[in-house]
Amino acid sequence: MPREDDEVIPDLTIEQKATLASGADFWSTKPVPGIRRITMNDGPHGMRVVGDIGIKSDKKATCFPPAVGLGATWNPALQREVGAAIGREARALGVDIVLGPGINIKRSPLCGRNFEYVSEDPLVAGSFGQALVEGIQSQGVGASVKHFAANNQETDRMQVSAEVDERTLREIYLPAFEQVVKNAAPATVMCSYNRVNGVYASQNEWLLSKVLRDDWGFDGVVVSDWGAVVDRVEAVKAGLDLKMPTATGDDRMIAAAESGELPEFVLDRVVARLQKLADRADASRLGPVTIDFDAQHELALRAALEGPVLLKNENGALPLPETGSTRIAVVGEFARTPRFQGSGSSQVPAAKVDSALGELSELLGDRVRFAPGFTFDGSAEADEALAREARSLAAESDWTVLFLGLPDSYESEGFDRASIDLPANQLALLETVSAVTRRVVVVLSNGGLVETESWEFRARAILEGWLLGQAGGAALAQLLVGRANPSGKLTESIPVKLEETPAYINFPGCDGQVVYGERIYVGYRYYDTRGLPVSYPFGHGLSYTEFEYSGLSVSATDSGASVVFTVTNVGEVAGAEVAQVYRGDRHSKIDRPVHELVGFRKVFLEPGESETVTIELDSRAFAYWSIARHGWIVDEGLFTLSVGASSRDLRLSGDVRLAAQGPALKLTQFSSIADWFADPIGAQVLQGAIAQLPDAHAFQLDVTTNEGKMFAAIPLGHLLTMVPQAPTGAAQQLVAAYEQALAGR
Amino acid sequence: MPREDDEVIPDLTIEQKATLASGADFWSTKPVPGIRRITMNDGPHGMRVVGDIGIKSDKKATCFPPAVGLGATWNPALQREVGAAIGREARALGVDIVLGPGINIKRSPLCGRNFEYVSEDPLVAGSFGQALVEGIQSQGVGASVKHFAANNQETDRMQVSAEVDERTLREIYLPAFEQVVKNAAPATVMCSYNRVNGVYASQNEWLLSKVLRDDWGFDGVVVSDWGAVVDRVEAVKAGLDLKMPTATGDDRMIAAAESGELPEFVLDRVVARLQKLADRADASRLGPVTIDFDAQHELALRAALEGPVLLKNENGALPLPETGSTRIAVVGEFARTPRFQGSGSSQVPAAKVDSALGELSELLGDRVRFAPGFTFDGSAEADEALAREARSLAAESDWTVLFLGLPDSYESEGFDRASIDLPANQLALLETVSAVTRRVVVVLSNGGLVETESWEFRARAILEGWLLGQAGGAALAQLLVGRANPSGKLTESIPVKLEETPAYINFPGCDGQVVYGERIYVGYRYYDTRGLPVSYPFGHGLSYTEFEYSGLSVSATDSGASVVFTVTNVGEVAGAEVAQVYRGDRHSKIDRPVHELVGFRKVFLEPGESETVTIELDSRAFAYWSIARHGWIVDEGLFTLSVGASSRDLRLSGDVRLAAQGPALKLTQFSSIADWFADPIGAQVLQGAIAQLPDAHAFQLDVTTNEGKMFAAIPLGHLLTMVPQAPTGAAQQLVAAYEQALAGR
Repeated sequence: MPREDDEVIPDLTIEQKATLASGADFWSTKPVPGIRRITMNDGPHGMRVVGDIGIKSDKKATCFPPAVGLGATWNPALQREVGAAIGREARALGVDIVLGPGINIKRSPLCGRNFEYVSEDPLVAGSFGQALVEGIQSQGVGASVKHFAANNQETDRMQVSAEVDERTLREIYLPAFEQVVKNAAPATVMCSYNRVNGVYASQNEWLLSKVLRDDWGFDGVVVSDWGAVVDRVEAVKAGLDLKMPTATGDDRMIAAAESGELPEFVLDRVVARLQKLADRADASRLGPVTIDFDAQHELALRAALEGPVLLKNENGALPLPETGSTRIAVVGEFARTPRFQGSGSSQVPAAKVDSALGELSELLGDRVRFAPGFTFDGSAEADEALAREARSLAAESDWTVLFLGLPDSYESEGFDRASIDLPANQLALLETVSAVTRRVVVVLSNGGLVETESWEFRARAILEGWLLGQAGGAALAQLLVGRANPSGKLTESIPVKLEETPAYINFPGCDGQVVYGERIYVGYRYYDTRGLPVSYPFGHGLSYTEFEYSGLSVSATDSGASVVFTVTNVGEVAGAEVAQVYRGDRHSKIDRPVHELVGFRKVFLEPGESETVTIELDSRAFAYWSIARHGWIVDEGLFTLSVGASSRDLRLSGDVRLAAQGPALKLTQFSSIADWFADPIGAQVLQGAIAQLPDAHAFQLDVTTNEGKMFAAIPLGHLLTMVPQAPTGAAQQLVAAYEQALAGR
Repeated sequence: MPREDDEVIPDLTIEQKATLASGADFWSTKPVPGIRRITMNDGPHGMRVVGDIGIKSDKKATCFPPAVGLGATWNPALQREVGAAIGREARALGVDIVLGPGINIKRSPLCGRNFEYVSEDPLVAGSFGQALVEGIQSQGVGASVKHFAANNQETDRMQVSAEVDERTLREIYLPAFEQVVKNAAPATVMCSYNRVNGVYASQNEWLLSKVLRDDWGFDGVVVSDWGAVVDRVEAVKAGLDLKMPTATGDDRMIAAAESGELPEFVLDRVVARLQKLADRADASRLGPVTIDFDAQHELALRAALEGPVLLKNENGALPLPETGSTRIAVVGEFARTPRFQGSGSSQVPAAKVDSALGELSELLGDRVRFAPGFTFDGSAEADEALAREARSLAAESDWTVLFLGLPDSYESEGFDRASIDLPANQLALLETVSAVTRRVVVVLSNGGLVETESWEFRARAILEGWLLGQAGGAALAQLLVGRANPSGKLTESIPVKLEETPAYINFPGCDGQVVYGERIYVGYRYYDTRGLPVSYPFGHGLSYTEFEYSGLSVSATDSGASVVFTVTNVGEVAGAEVAQVYRGDRHSKIDRPVHELVGFRKVFLEPGESETVTIELDSRAFAYWSIARHGWIVDEGLFTLSVGASSRDLRLSGDVRLAAQGPALKLTQFSSIADWFADPIGAQVLQGAIAQLPDAHAFQLDVTTNEGKMFAAIPLGHLLTMVPQAPTGAAQQLVAAYEQALAGR
């Protein structure tokens, strides 16, 4: 790789360069002449500034909704605001780089870190990542989009090899990163721990240089996840700039540089990138920052209000009446002790935490009574007594709101779940309570999804609250009583059962490798293509009002299509709808999902109000990645564009015809006889050769017979190995003749 | 690879050796001094001796049931008899090598060549292959077990790369070949066309030399499938002996031998193997053979009687009364024009073909009336008139037997199917007929399975007749009237719909590769592990009598287990039951199918008769293949052995405890902290190192917390890259200390 010539490389010794290419300590680099110390800290949904390897921090910060909650808003503008707010706190804390967002695809609901990720869909994840990075970087601090790439599980995460074909990487696991890199220019990209097709991400030249820099044009710094570097020299050669944390292995770097194993220009490249990183951060800084924690909390609340997904709402059970005399039983420890963020490196020392119980009591006064119902550790005796108490309370109340979810010990960075069930003690409580009242509302707090099929019939309404950050309690309370209207949508399908999830038979792998056997069929791409039932489909989410879709028009543009439609709020209250556009491709030359999300828009509408939405789709919205053709391919023909409220609630649909795009496929000796005859030039060349055979007249290709089909499928070169008269090199000669004819056309 | 020293290599020129390593013409090798011409011909279920590349032959031969039908007998003794009968005809026709059997796994029901294959289960396929090879070779001719390996589709078969991990190969796609090689010593193994993990099978050294010869001890000849060799030199170096057909490329071989690219001892090895092949064949020949085609037909009938699977038999609809006045409508062109074998290279010029209509008329006289019902080409007008005729006939009859199936054009070597539906005109006929009578029996003739879910409610009984060879018509007639009792069992699961089949999202691949994404979860291993419904489960098959299972006893043996149980015929007529043994492993360290077939036995019982069956299981019945440990592993603990009539009709079950077997896993720097502490020696070494740290007392591993779990999962080497105090090489030193302690134990 060439020097980046526009850089002025500080005059450093090899020792200094090697030192610079790794952390000095756990959270920062060592200053060298010309380049100041760079400080990095977690995390994606709020700042966690700690002194060493520990998890806990005492530096107060605002805990915004983790990605699972903020992602479910489907609102990039809001996500950008949150990013900016995190950026401000980072500035105030003296942090140069915020270690987030995490935008890995939710391949399996069992991944212990799914709460830090956004979606099973790359467009939803990429839009979130772009918005968050734009927001963070608007404040003069850098973001670190992570974990690059194919890091979709915690089990054996530091070395497991994700065995995944290039098409699946290009179409599913990389596009979110691509979107962020191309549209938001993140200061850094963090490489993941795992191996990708056998090669550690930290030393994977294909990922870090070919894809990231050559294909996408990334010009920032690649930083390792903490402890992800196995061989520093190999890593830097592959495109890594900064090994974090600490400075182990400098001696090996120095020796490699001195021996020439590591060319010095490669180290110079690292130095130039780090210098640019430091300079760019300094240049964009505007002066000192102070934080108004009340205003930050207010934003955390606004963000939390849009995340919860109203899965079900039988006969308008929600909202609860805010006035009147209705007695409300609030049951479940989560109402009093909210679970609002996940476990692991992303834990924010929240400035202030709202509880749903406190907020509901404030809103509804003494009509609200509480029973904890269960313990987080599931102690059998305690639970029995608590369940009895809850049952009595429910029996005496008009409505029971049950706050269920996953205790902290159920999911975390560092390990995966084994089940998607709610804890047994909570399901037992639900059964107990629903035996005395049918007026049950369930509110969920969980980072990874939970199955609902086995118990949803016991609840009239289900509000999936995910993890919502420090203002989540207030948000849930406001949504429950209708002060706010739910507008979150599922960013992941809720399956009927774990066994039916796409990766079930391939998660988390064994013996150091995990086969991504479902390939591109992740999430709804799997369920919808296989026609399998789900409990709640991708994109689903109810509102207290209703929306109508009308007036779809689709038309081809220069390289893609334009989709125009109108959404109308036909209900009684204001609300927001996330309108979704899916593209189907029934004519493609290779297998594709039955449809894929290619666009979405969140519209906020007063009762009776309409908005006409225009979504422009570029050619990528129609393309697939071809391994054989090394590029994005659009097959000529009709594509279907469907618009609706979820992947299984498509209201409008229209067709658009596109021309072929992408690199052409040339005939080779491996092309079949049928392919040769299907190509005008190839047919001419082949017919010419056949005409010279003594028994040319006997030759005919009849693909209506089984034998003819068999023959037509034989590659030209293979066929000629069976023809005794064919001279050595006959196939190559035909290919050369074809190429000559092609060039002379 | 060393010379095989016990061989006397004929004194040949390099030209002669090169020539010998390929065919002289389409079906034989060129004689050289000391080694005579060797003749090879198709095919697996009867001889097809043709002069050139054509499919049709006029040399009369007996067409036995293709593998799909003969496999469904689950009767190795019968399969051996058929093999011997094929071997006799080969002898009589002057053939040295019979190009069969084909034992590839039925990965998807869409594979166009499934009729030539046996099962979705490697034990069923391997037992069949062993029996057939033993039979063929008992007559002094060689067999050619094929297509080695991972050739499970016809689409792009000549070059598609099967992307399949080693465990899946070792556990699913290779064991049938392994069983045949180890137990039946086939004269030749035929390599397949496709690539395996990017490398053509014909030049895949791992397959042809490491696995086949080193691991399994194969000492015969590897012959290429016809046209499978892409690079002759690479192929011979990888372990191929004979490129078929014809002699193209000799010049390249000679040049490579002369230049040293191809060491001469490699060519000598080929010569020695071919010499041995010829000599061995000659030595085992007993004198001239004559064929009694009537006796051969009789055997073809016996074989055909055991293949059909009685899927369903509501209220004992079958057998039809052989006496009395019941009027039988026989409907469907297949009754008159039987489809008894598949399309492609395996087509036998059958000596004599029975039709079910003819045989039924002979058995039942003029109580049988016939209407063709439909045409094979589905011509709409003709079908309508034929359907009307059939409906009238059905309305006038007591029972209607509908012969449905797949016309020849629906499946063949050379291309795959796109659907598993019966042709629409046949389904329409079934609907028409069942509108006028509920007494409908369906008899199926098809090579690949067909879905039954959408129409099975219209039939009181379904007899799945597969393809049954030239005596199939007589066999079906005898089974329908109860002269014989069905005893076939499904060798493949019948899915509810195509979309639910394991490989649906990964078949037939694209852009030159097919990802075996379902890995080891093929067939019932998939459905049963995922808990998905099927229409008819693997191993299913009804009888006109009933069987009881009793008295299970399981006990550990030296390296495996012994299973003893009793099967009793508790019905009124004689019959045969295929008792199946499945092994479950709930404690394994890696993911495994919920159960796997490890043994079966077909028992023939008169009414009231019992037989006690003993099945000995070796350690392989319990083992999985570990990629990390490069071998077969049995994890210590309790295994469940279940006995029954299908994978979903398990009647008895018992547990057996086995000790650990297989290569041990040693700690390395990539082993996690948890693994180090779990190993007694590793823990000692690590504790010793920790004790020398200044803050040793502060260290404690608490895996009850999320943070502790996160920490424990870090590999030792990775952890040390984050510890600034750790000297370069610290991990290697700990590993060395561990290895020293291990050696000194």
